[in-house]
Formats: sequence, structure tokens, C-alpha cells
Amino acid sequence: MSARARSAPGEARASAREAGSGDFRVGLLGHGTVGSAFVVLLEQRADEIERFNGRRPVLSGLLTRTQGDFEQILAGADLLVELMGGIEPAREYLLRALHAGKDVVSANKQLLSQHGEELFETARERGVRLRFEAAVAGVVPVVRVLEESLSATPIDRIHGIVNGTTNFILTEMTKGASYAEALAEAQRSGYAEADPSDDVSGRDAAAKMAILARLAFGAPVHLDDVRYEGIEHLHGDDLQYAKEFGLGLKLVGTAERREGGLSVHVHPTLLYPGHPLASVSGPFNAVTVESRTITEITMSGPGAGGPQTASAVLGDVVSVMTGGARPPAPPLPIELIDDVESAFYLHMETADRPGVLAAVTEVLGDHGVSIKSMVQRGMGQSARLVMVTHGVLESRLRRALQRVAEFEFVRAEPRMIRVIEEEFL
Amino acid sequence: MSARARSAPGEARASAREAGSGDFRVGLLGHGTVGSAFVVLLEQRADEIERFNGRRPVLSGLLTRTQGDFEQILAGADLLVELMGGIEPAREYLLRALHAGKDVVSANKQLLSQHGEELFETARERGVRLRFEAAVAGVVPVVRVLEESLSATPIDRIHGIVNGTTNFILTEMTKGASYAEALAEAQRSGYAEADPSDDVSGRDAAAKMAILARLAFGAPVHLDDVRYEGIEHLHGDDLQYAKEFGLGLKLVGTAERREGGLSVHVHPTLLYPGHPLASVSGPFNAVTVESRTITEITMSGPGAGGPQTASAVLGDVVSVMTGGARPPAPPLPIELIDDVESAFYLHMETADRPGVLAAVTEVLGDHGVSIKSMVQRGMGQSARLVMVTHGVLESRLRRALQRVAEFEFVRAEPRMIRVIEEEFL
Repeated sequence: MSARARSAPGEARASAREAGSGDFRVGLLGHGTVGSAFVVLLEQRADEIERFNGRRPVLSGLLTRTQGDFEQILAGADLLVELMGGIEPAREYLLRALHAGKDVVSANKQLLSQHGEELFETARERGVRLRFEAAVAGVVPVVRVLEESLSATPIDRIHGIVNGTTNFILTEMTKGASYAEALAEAQRSGYAEADPSDDVSGRDAAAKMAILARLAFGAPVHLDDVRYEGIEHLHGDDLQYAKEFGLGLKLVGTAERREGGLSVHVHPTLLYPGHPLASVSGPFNAVTVESRTITEITMSGPGAGGPQTASAVLGDVVSVMTGGARPPAPPLPIELIDDVESAFYLHMETADRPGVLAAVTEVLGDHGVSIKSMVQRGMGQSARLVMVTHGVLESRLRRALQRVAEFEFVRAEPRMIRVIEEEFL
Repeated sequence: MSARARSAPGEARASAREAGSGDFRVGLLGHGTVGSAFVVLLEQRADEIERFNGRRPVLSGLLTRTQGDFEQILAGADLLVELMGGIEPAREYLLRALHAGKDVVSANKQLLSQHGEELFETARERGVRLRFEAAVAGVVPVVRVLEESLSATPIDRIHGIVNGTTNFILTEMTKGASYAEALAEAQRSGYAEADPSDDVSGRDAAAKMAILARLAFGAPVHLDDVRYEGIEHLHGDDLQYAKEFGLGLKLVGTAERREGGLSVHVHPTLLYPGHPLASVSGPFNAVTVESRTITEITMSGPGAGGPQTASAVLGDVVSVMTGGARPPAPPLPIELIDDVESAFYLHMETADRPGVLAAVTEVLGDHGVSIKSMVQRGMGQSARLVMVTHGVLESRLRRALQRVAEFEFVRAEPRMIRVIEEEFL
């Protein structure tokens, strides 16, 4: 921790006043893992940033649980960095900063996915910047690229692996570990918290996809609008069967235009090996942006970690310092669609006797579900029917599976997992 | 082509004068594949860009081989887009534009890699922007990310697949095609030009690496400073042997800090499957940026194509419009180093008799070359010794191979290919 970071509130103001006219004063809210890393990185990089940009970023104030006065820090800063996490008081502080005409950088995905419109609207009204690269995919610069690089390109779809914890767990499961073993390993390695529910339930990924969807499509997407499904209920044997079809399992967030509407969801998803996300292993994040104009761009990198996140935060600070950032765009209301077409992997446990396959495929056919590939395997008294369908509307497939489940020869609830059909190259 | 693009020079000025005060006037030099695509894209995206940024980009003038007057176009534009290619007159036009205080966007890698310092220096003196996202890796936003996102991070190394033509050819060769067959297929598919020498010699990749190195390390790197080696001389059997070691072949450009100096080079390079570039297939580009702070970020996407390149160019225009770009930073002289340490794949053809392996490994050992893995294979009268070394200074390995080549039992010039040792995850 730097001398400045250690200073009491009064001293922090003093160092702000000492700042030269070329200095860019950064007030910091929060001093946990990322906050501490940010303080260190800011000092380390100040010379280099000044050399490139002409202004020197300095820490002008620090608010922790036990020290600092928000109003004083706000008054003495050109920009506030919020690394407190949680909804309150982060929301209140950010709104006050934006109303005071101060630019803001935040890594707070909970806040942005649940109160984003209020914050974006305030920033827009006041003509100030609200940046949040670190809130979405760690150090992977997807926010910046969506905002700037792709403003020239209409985006059709985003697929993202935006939770490193679950990607680590699924990578371990693919190697043969059970869910419980993989989770325990993730916790031992520091990739999962003691209470992993936000990660493994898909809720963390859903928050990030809400933010990404707002950015890519302009639509005001709230966390509550994002349907999500986690990885806790996955069966190891589904991963093994999927392998036989050449498919790998990831927790994928999707935001895509569909017939004039927008669909945003997070699900365990099977990918063919050619898909750009298929090779993303371990605690990494990756986002693929698809557009007719550019085909697709994929960005990947570490999903978390104090120094990595701090680096993304400092990148945002530099963007504001150098004018390379603008207030949020107004929202573009787009209808949110829940029921979309996808290919699916299906797993059914049935009695092993003649006529079963014919009965199942007839029901599927009646509902317009077309089968791409299938494996049937006898397991003593019972059999497994495992198949991959072509694209079908989810509601239609669910109705078909309800009918299938009514057959007396079906021994367990049929299981379904989304499959991304596209094979790039 | 739009009505405006079709207009004669006089009309172009007229439309510039007609432009509203909120309009952002873009003068275009060059109307080939990328230029035409840019004109179409500019019109398509103007509404959306205006909605997000408050200003509307309009084409205010067009210079082709047969029409347009440079001075008139310059006077009527807020920014010039140069898509002519080649050194002259592009260089002269850009210098005149920069001297006139106009911002410039260029996709011209030849020009930037050979006259970059002159252009950057002029832009810096005049305080104007010179942007070139499309010059490096097609639509992959590596320039933007290096400039902004990573200004907060000291970069240690960049590895890039920055030539889609050679990546396509190598992908085909990995599937079993000969170099000649793969090249012919690339030409049929439109991924290689009739004269592919700039691509297959590695020179195109070298130009891009010179530009990337300038950006990442601040060093004034000229194309002539970049050592490069192409893919024409590759042997199909080396690709097969490499497969046995679990290695895949790519044409990789590298720019890296080495003991206070900088090394920039392009070589056919073998990668382990875990490397982020190993899964990049077909006519794609990808760049991995490594830094102690962030581990690494990888970005990938299509390497070329008119609409893709036009999209990167328009992204640069939007950056300038919105103030999200600044004049180039001053150069940071760094010593360029040629002789660096790497792991290598070695292929030797020898007589098949006792004592050969002992003699070869003794010479290697005497020169400090340590062997990581090896395959020896008898082929009738002769044998193949194929091995992968640990890291060794290239000059040291070359001296060892000279000594090896002097043995009377060596039947052909020993071959060597760089290997990137790091296995991520």
C-alpha cells in the first residue's frame, strides 16, 4: 500500500491540493483486494501514463469502511473509482458523484446490472462518463471494443464465457472429476469462494450478460430480464456422451437479435471444437462478437484476480483522462424474447425393448424436432437414448419432451442441454 | 457506391459545404476493394453513429486514380482516410494532411512500417491524430487495445498470427496438403493473391509486427529492423513430425522485451496445443498480449476482406470524431536485439548406424543445447533424428548445427524451427 493510500482523510485532501495543475485526481471508494491492487498499480504506472498522456494520475482520497469522508473525497477528485461492490451505499455514492458532474469508473456488476439505467441516465443528463470495463470479463477489453471499435458495425450476437469459476469447474469435470470434486479443487485453488452460489448458479454470468447486452444492443436489460441456469445439476455422464458427439461443455451467456427482438440468457451449452469458445479452458473468460460485416471477433484472457481487475480499472481511468470515453448512449427499447430456437442435446433413460426408439422419434417428429445425430446404448434392463437435434424452438422441444416423459417406458426425466450449431472453419 | 462517392470533385466540395454544422466531413483517398466497402459502410452506419455520438460522418470528397483533386478534398474535410496503399503518393498526401492539422486514418501497413516515425512525428508536432487499426490485424482491435486498455499495463511480449493467407496455407498443410497444393487452394478461395510473395515470404507479417512493436513498446521499429522468414521452404514431413510431439505450426510474429532490449521477428513457429494461438485456423488473425499484470489477452478474428477492413477503418473514424484518440506518443529508443533464446525443433538426416546419436548429442551438449524430447527413425539406409530442445540462444544452436553438419554421416542440411515453450494452463 502506498503512503498516500495510507493517509488519513485530511492528509488525502492535502495531497490532492498539492497535486500539480497537470495532475488528474482519482478518489477511490473501497480498499479490498482490487482496491489495494489498484493503489499499487496507479503508483507503478503514473510515470508511464504521464509520459503518454501529459497528465499524471494521483490518488487524491480513499474511502474505506473505517476511514475517509465521502463528500471530501468527492470534492477533491476529478474522477471517482468505485470498488466497494454491493448495491448500497455504492449506488448512492455513484449517483451523487454523477450529479456533481464527476466522471466515474466502477467494477460493480451487481450494481450496473440492477441499477444501470438509473446510473446511465444520470451520467447522460450530466454529460459525464461512467466506465465499467472491469465489471464484465476481467481484463478482457470487451466493453471498450463494443463501445468503440464496433460502433461502426451492427452486432448480431454475443457469446461469452464470463465466469471463470464455472469454466474452471467444467474444465475439471471434462477431465473426469465430479462436480463436487471440481468445486472443491476450485476452492482450494482460490478460483471459487467458500459460498460459490453466485457463480455456479449462473447469476454472476447473467449480471455480466445484462451489461454486455445493454452495450451491444442499446437495450435497457436488467438482471431480472436474463434467464439463467447454472452448472450444479449437470451430470458427469452428459459430459461423456457429449464428448462422443465431439462436443465440449461451457457455461455460455448469449445476447442475440432474434426477429426484431433481443434474447439474453445464460445456460450450460455444448460447443463443437471449431467454435472460438471451445478452446477456452480453466479460469479464463472469453467473448465472441458476431456481426455480418466482420464475421466474428473473439477476445479472451484471465477472468479475475486483483491485479488483473485493477489493470482494467486503470485502463478506464486513462480513457477518461485522455478524453477517450463519452457519456452513455440513450437506451434503445427492444422487445426481450424468451423462447428462441437452438439445437439441443437430449438424454433419455428408457426401458431397453423394441419400439421405444420408434415411439420417441415419432413424438419428436410430430413436434417438428429433427434429429442430427444419435447414440443408443443398452445398460442392462434400461437403455440410454442420447441425441443432438437440429435447431428447434425451445417451447416446442419442451412440449415434445413432456409427451415423451409420459411414456411408461421412460425411467427418468429427459435432460436437455443447448448446443451451438455453428462450426467456424 | 453512393451518390456522393460518385460525385465529381466540384460536387464533392459542394456536398461538404452542404454538410450541417454537426456533420463530420470525411475525405477519402482510394477507391479499391476496401475504399468501396468503406463508402457503403459509412452510409449504412451514419444514422447509428450520429445517434450515439451526436455527429454524423459524411463523405466530403473522394480521390481515385481518375478523379478528384487532393487539395480540394483536404480543404473540405475534417479527417482524411487513406486507402490507396503503396508508399507514394500516399506518404506525401498524409504528410500534407498532417501538416495542415487534419486527423488521418490509414490502413497502409507498408507506409507505416517504413515511414512511420516521420508520420508519427509530424502528427505529434501538429497535435493531430493518426490512426491505423486496419493496418495490423484486420478487424481484430489490437491497436485500440494496446493504446488504451493496456496503457495501464507494462507489456512484456506480443505473439501474433497477423497474416491470414499463410495461416490458411499452414492449416491446409496440417491436414496433409503440400505447400503447392495449399497455396493453389488459397488462391482459388481468394485468400492468396496471384503473386503471393509478400505474404508467404513473411514480409507482410513483418510490416505489421513493426507497427505493433512501436505501439506496444514505444520503440521506433522499421520494417528493415524485423528479421523474417516465410513458409515457402517448409517441409511437409516437419509438420508431421511436429504433430508427434503434439506441436502445431503457425507463422508467428513476436515482439518482446529481452534483457533491456527489444526483439522483433517473424518465423514459422511450433506451438503446444494449450497456447492461445494454437487453435487459430484458416484465414484468421490473432494476437496474444502478455504482461505480468494481466497474464495474457488474446484477440482473434478475420484477417482481411473489404467489409471487415472497412469496419476497422470506420471504427477509427468514430474514435477521432468522439475524441477517443490522441496524437502518437514520442518514441522510446530501445536497443533492438537479434539473437534471442528460444526452444527449437531440429530435423537431421543421417546414416543409420551406431554412434551417430551419441556424436550428435555430444556436440549439442558441448554447445549447451539441452534436449527436451526426441524421436529417431530408421528409413532404410538413412535415419531421421528429430528433437525438440529446451531454450537456447539461437547463435549457439546455429554453431552447434554447423558442427553437426560437418559429420560425414549427416546426409542433408539440418533443419530448425522455433518452438514456443509456454504451455498455458
